[in-house]
Amino acid sequence: MDKHVLGLELPTDPRWVNIAEKNIEEILIDHAYCEQKAASSCISLIVKFPEKQELVEMLTPVVAEEWSHFERVIEEMKKRGYSLGPMRKDEYVAKLSKIEKKGGSREEQLVEKLLFNALIEARSCERFRLLWKNINDEELQKFYYELMVSEAGHYKNFLKLAKTYLPEKRVMERWREILAAEAEIIETLEVRGDRMH
Amino acid sequence: MDKHVLGLELPTDPRWVNIAEKNIEEILIDHAYCEQKAASSCISLIVKFPEKQELVEMLTPVVAEEWSHFERVIEEMKKRGYSLGPMRKDEYVAKLSKIEKKGGSREEQLVEKLLFNALIEARSCERFRLLWKNINDEELQKFYYELMVSEAGHYKNFLKLAKTYLPEKRVMERWREILAAEAEIIETLEVRGDRMH
Repeated sequence: MDKHVLGLELPTDPRWVNIAEKNIEEILIDHAYCEQKAASSCISLIVKFPEKQELVEMLTPVVAEEWSHFERVIEEMKKRGYSLGPMRKDEYVAKLSKIEKKGGSREEQLVEKLLFNALIEARSCERFRLLWKNINDEELQKFYYELMVSEAGHYKNFLKLAKTYLPEKRVMERWREILAAEAEIIETLEVRGDRMH
Repeated sequence: MDKHVLGLELPTDPRWVNIAEKNIEEILIDHAYCEQKAASSCISLIVKFPEKQELVEMLTPVVAEEWSHFERVIEEMKKRGYSLGPMRKDEYVAKLSKIEKKGGSREEQLVEKLLFNALIEARSCERFRLLWKNINDEELQKFYYELMVSEAGHYKNFLKLAKTYLPEKRVMERWREILAAEAEIIETLEVRGDRMH
């Protein structure tokens, strides 16, 4: 489950997890919203591409899973006396959305969205692994381990789905472009341990 | 579980279920989207009012339940060889949104949204009861019976939640106004058996 398995070009700065483990409240809040955005993003894909039966069938259980993670994060927050509070600005996703190609055929638009979903799952998976390995809280360690496994599954699903709508070669070319662009974003983003990304 | 229990002022035209049972494909498609919209509407409430801890805790499992209904509808469709297809125009909800009061305090805005959610759950519940009682498909009958029970629970939750944010008297006054306005909408809407509402 290292960066090579996930395809990511740049590993997370090691300072991130050191700051993150001191900011568990902020990390949990931001994480809850990541799960909400993942669920909402899959719902949008279903509503925008309802004629794609494989997509509807593959993403419907993903929504349920992402939402069950949201539910679990809210429980972990409650146990610790934290409450949700407003959504934090997500600079990582804002920067990613700038490199997303708009337009093209319906299939191209869909594949683009699937690849960005795959990417965010892969990066989240890498971060959950760091939290699992480093955090000083046994309960949260178990939780992040489970999430790491689950998000790795989603990442593969999104890539697999993308390959059903465009030829594998084209999908993988665009995937590599996106991975390179994401590495640049990660490199230039301020390392802040109060965000998942 | 009759209209009086649910508070609705006008029962559904009896012709509706007679047409609906001949249009199961259209009813299932429209129903899937009703579940999706219910889940998305609760997610929006959580994102808009994240500081309201009772709301977050009450609606988080409601999203999971609505989404599990979406999942079940998709399964029932698949068994019958139907696929989702585009969202149908929802004239009922479009007309309801015109009587929704915008503005006011944060609590007033929230209560308004909770009451409209309660209303749609109540009307859906009434329609599920009609489908359960009348439809000539044992499997779907069971399904609609379960949904009727579940939506009745949600309807009560939304009303209860509304009363935690504004005094009961004010909530019930506005609730009666909304019920009266909804009865007028139901009376003037064309009876069409290819929609849940």
